[in-house]
Amino acid sequence: MEPVTLINAFEVPAGEDEAFLDGWRAAAEHLRGCPGFRSTRLHRSLGPNAEFRFVNVAVWDSAEAFQRAVSSPAFRALAERIAYPSHPALYHAVAED
Amino acid sequence: MEPVTLINAFEVPAGEDEAFLDGWRAAAEHLRGCPGFRSTRLHRSLGPNAEFRFVNVAVWDSAEAFQRAVSSPAFRALAERIAYPSHPALYHAVAED
Repeated sequence: MEPVTLINAFEVPAGEDEAFLDGWRAAAEHLRGCPGFRSTRLHRSLGPNAEFRFVNVAVWDSAEAFQRAVSSPAFRALAERIAYPSHPALYHAVAED
Repeated sequence: MEPVTLINAFEVPAGEDEAFLDGWRAAAEHLRGCPGFRSTRLHRSLGPNAEFRFVNVAVWDSAEAFQRAVSSPAFRALAERIAYPSHPALYHAVAED
């Protein structure tokens, strides 16, 4: 089974880093206990005014495992705390060096 | 020196994957010979209609090394071949599991 990569770019206004990080950490803590979770890495932009202040790159065993995890009521309650505009999609790596 | 991560999300219309990939590979081939380059990984969305069809995640020794590499006339000529709307920024990893 080929793993999938979730890439989710968040639009977080200046001054709201800590609020976002608190919510993200709680959601990540939940997800890492779900079946199929492999890894997650959250990135913050060097410049404070980047279009996407935070980008999460996470690896899951499969699209099904990811969808199951984020469909749960427990996760959806946590996700409400990080309700900034975001741009999530699932990807496969197609080239690397 | 802390490495930096370039994350660049590309808007590539349906049907233009191969044109994008050809251009991206030529640009990546050039960049991997530049001082400070560490790695690159290109992702393609599972769904063909994702907002960002491709996302590149690359690691460089420093913001300076990256800026030097992409400012060269040689790179800029190559970049013209992948002139799709894109959303590049430099990041630090702030959390990982």
